[in-house]
Amino acid sequence: MSVEKVVGAAEGAFEASLGRLMQLLRIPSISTDPAYAEDCAKAAAWLVKELSALGFEASSRATPGRPMVVAHYTPKGADAKTPHALFYGHYDVQPVDPIEKWHTKPFEPVLKDGKLYGRGTADDKGQLMTFVEAARAWIAATGSLPIKATFLIEGEEESGSPSLIPFLQANKAELSCDVAFVCDTNMWDEKTPAITTRLRGLVHEEVEVTGPAIDLHSGMYGGPATNPIRALSGLVAALHDKNSKVTIPGFYDGVAALPKPTKKQWASLKFSEKKFLSAVGLKSSAGEKGFSVLEQIWARPTAEVNGMWGGYTGAGTKTVIPSKAFAKFTFRLVGKQNPQKILKAFQAFAKKHMMKDAKIKFSGHGGGSPASEISEGNAYIQKSAAALKAEWGRETVLMGSGGSIPIVRSFKDILGMDSVLVGFGLNDDAIHSPNEKYNLSSFQRGIKSWVRIIGALAQ
Amino acid sequence: MSVEKVVGAAEGAFEASLGRLMQLLRIPSISTDPAYAEDCAKAAAWLVKELSALGFEASSRATPGRPMVVAHYTPKGADAKTPHALFYGHYDVQPVDPIEKWHTKPFEPVLKDGKLYGRGTADDKGQLMTFVEAARAWIAATGSLPIKATFLIEGEEESGSPSLIPFLQANKAELSCDVAFVCDTNMWDEKTPAITTRLRGLVHEEVEVTGPAIDLHSGMYGGPATNPIRALSGLVAALHDKNSKVTIPGFYDGVAALPKPTKKQWASLKFSEKKFLSAVGLKSSAGEKGFSVLEQIWARPTAEVNGMWGGYTGAGTKTVIPSKAFAKFTFRLVGKQNPQKILKAFQAFAKKHMMKDAKIKFSGHGGGSPASEISEGNAYIQKSAAALKAEWGRETVLMGSGGSIPIVRSFKDILGMDSVLVGFGLNDDAIHSPNEKYNLSSFQRGIKSWVRIIGALAQ
Repeated sequence: MSVEKVVGAAEGAFEASLGRLMQLLRIPSISTDPAYAEDCAKAAAWLVKELSALGFEASSRATPGRPMVVAHYTPKGADAKTPHALFYGHYDVQPVDPIEKWHTKPFEPVLKDGKLYGRGTADDKGQLMTFVEAARAWIAATGSLPIKATFLIEGEEESGSPSLIPFLQANKAELSCDVAFVCDTNMWDEKTPAITTRLRGLVHEEVEVTGPAIDLHSGMYGGPATNPIRALSGLVAALHDKNSKVTIPGFYDGVAALPKPTKKQWASLKFSEKKFLSAVGLKSSAGEKGFSVLEQIWARPTAEVNGMWGGYTGAGTKTVIPSKAFAKFTFRLVGKQNPQKILKAFQAFAKKHMMKDAKIKFSGHGGGSPASEISEGNAYIQKSAAALKAEWGRETVLMGSGGSIPIVRSFKDILGMDSVLVGFGLNDDAIHSPNEKYNLSSFQRGIKSWVRIIGALAQ
Repeated sequence: MSVEKVVGAAEGAFEASLGRLMQLLRIPSISTDPAYAEDCAKAAAWLVKELSALGFEASSRATPGRPMVVAHYTPKGADAKTPHALFYGHYDVQPVDPIEKWHTKPFEPVLKDGKLYGRGTADDKGQLMTFVEAARAWIAATGSLPIKATFLIEGEEESGSPSLIPFLQANKAELSCDVAFVCDTNMWDEKTPAITTRLRGLVHEEVEVTGPAIDLHSGMYGGPATNPIRALSGLVAALHDKNSKVTIPGFYDGVAALPKPTKKQWASLKFSEKKFLSAVGLKSSAGEKGFSVLEQIWARPTAEVNGMWGGYTGAGTKTVIPSKAFAKFTFRLVGKQNPQKILKAFQAFAKKHMMKDAKIKFSGHGGGSPASEISEGNAYIQKSAAALKAEWGRETVLMGSGGSIPIVRSFKDILGMDSVLVGFGLNDDAIHSPNEKYNLSSFQRGIKSWVRIIGALAQ
């Protein structure tokens, strides 16, 4: 079976695909507002009906919140060796406020100049329908999908996914596949496909530093009294060396050098560091010397102080030596950095860097998550990247993200699956904002991209 | 004329002196509460009457607030060479709240176990009456004071002395004397007299550090973005070296070494650093290495951060890289340190220590005051110290104070006079608190001390 035949079938169905997406977009499935609970159930039912019609064993599953759509497809003759992939998306959308800034009605999608406007076009209905329509094209052209597929489409992503982890835990056997595809991310640019292979982990900690037992008058005690702000500043200042390398012993354990091909690819992206920084009023990078800005965000760990306070902060002057000072820290992790070890190493470092007479107390809430990284050499990544390149005619960018996407962590921790993050969104899609849009090319070539990826998985 | 004869006259009048003090104490001259404005006028009038009766040219002078008592005494035959001293005290008192904690009525003074209880006994009616009664003893025993004297007794000291500076400016010629004696301070201990010769100056400054133009998400920008809290912490941490010496270039210009006799005297005071520090929950001094705690407070300058804030300070965690961070600084000055130079040196230092892409703005209100120091070798200090020693039988402690007393600055700046700070208060007098008291010995030997100081001035 030639994939090109399936691609042709997808192209032939573009108009009908768009019509179906429009139907889904017209359902105001806002998950954060209970007033729209029924609409969420409606969207879930719509998906179940569509997937059932395609031959999926589909159901809308109740949760304490919005229903979860689960659909399975098993080709005839499939066995244990047949690849099994999970595809994730979410049918819920953000609220529409401020409504007065919309140029069209958010739940009456409008196609204009090659862009589809409406709430959820990009986040995430347009995206999830790319893999739904790709499945349809395979079934239409060949009578079946060439792989086992499980679709998991949740309805609480915009509300922090409160039901997701319990649901994954309760349905572990049913949902565990060889690999997960998450379709909720962006392309590198309008013409260049991308797979996000690196998400940084996160550890947070809060500290309270006590100097004197009570606030003191600096006339009375200024000189001998230990100032907790000075003590805490000393700690913050000691966290980085001159080259902005984090100085905590063992901090870089598990941080691997970037593979040469990846480094080379990132360097070739013509990413404008200047533009990126000047957009937020900065001139130069304050990050780790010897690394590009993209590397600093995508492939290097950080130690940040997110808040700090102590002493008199009102108007005017007060000659106080405060009793206490506080700070909140976060650490972004990469590679195999262990959150627990990082936390302990920081605590030991902080104690060591305290002034002699200052006491430090830690009040973080523990936890933290390691980085979610999938090797750029992973077979699923390689196959998907090649399929995307075949569709878009450009090398697929294997990029990183400085933040984390919780679902990826949950798939790994609970279901033992790596995630391949493929999406066709663009930076200017205005998700979560008025006038959200999704490029028609993202939708159409997105469908064809999945056709090719599914084909590649079957090889 | 033997001073001992005058001392004898003072002793003979002790009972009457106490009675007069009781009269003054019964007037509730609270300056902070407008309801007691008339009582303040009454206290001023009482003083004018007493001083007039002694032969002073005394008057109660209107101000926008409470009246100022000014009284002049010029001995017969006095000429330009006759010493002329100003004596300062204040007749206004603190409010009495919380009234329920008083064991006696605040304005019905009670003598019990050698202590006189009541509002204003120590601060400052009991103290100011020591020099009034000393003058009375001189006039009773010899028919005259042996020096020219000006008494300046204000009624707004507890309200921040808003009328004082304009009053001094408006009456500069009338009030300028050879030297001022301020009677509003403490003895070293119950048995040891003291003169406060050193008051530290003060400079304050506030800074605003800007990193990015807006708050950033640390997932998106963590790494390259300049964090203003880190930048500000770097500055705070850089202000002191390992030995807690301030590192601002030129900071110690004008700071002289402590004279050996003073250093020796302070060392002999058996001041318990441990007690002083443990009273506020500290174990060891964080001050400049190589100096005792007394030296650190009385004779060494400081750089303190009094408040600092930036970023997220609420509950929980927020992965923000803030746009701005702020801090308030004060510098305590000694010797000939120049406030303007210190401010400029700090600003230059702060700019130099900023991270490359951080902007710093200074928003202090300028000004600042130099230290008020009078050389321990100054003739008035020496004469007064000797007179106090003669009365108390112990070496007079020439001590410092870590804070400042505004009146001393005003006398110096406006009237060109040094101040000799002699007082008979004790640390346990509970001034500004319920059950304020003044030891009878402070009152009686205070009177005799002034008799001797006045005698010494006439020599």
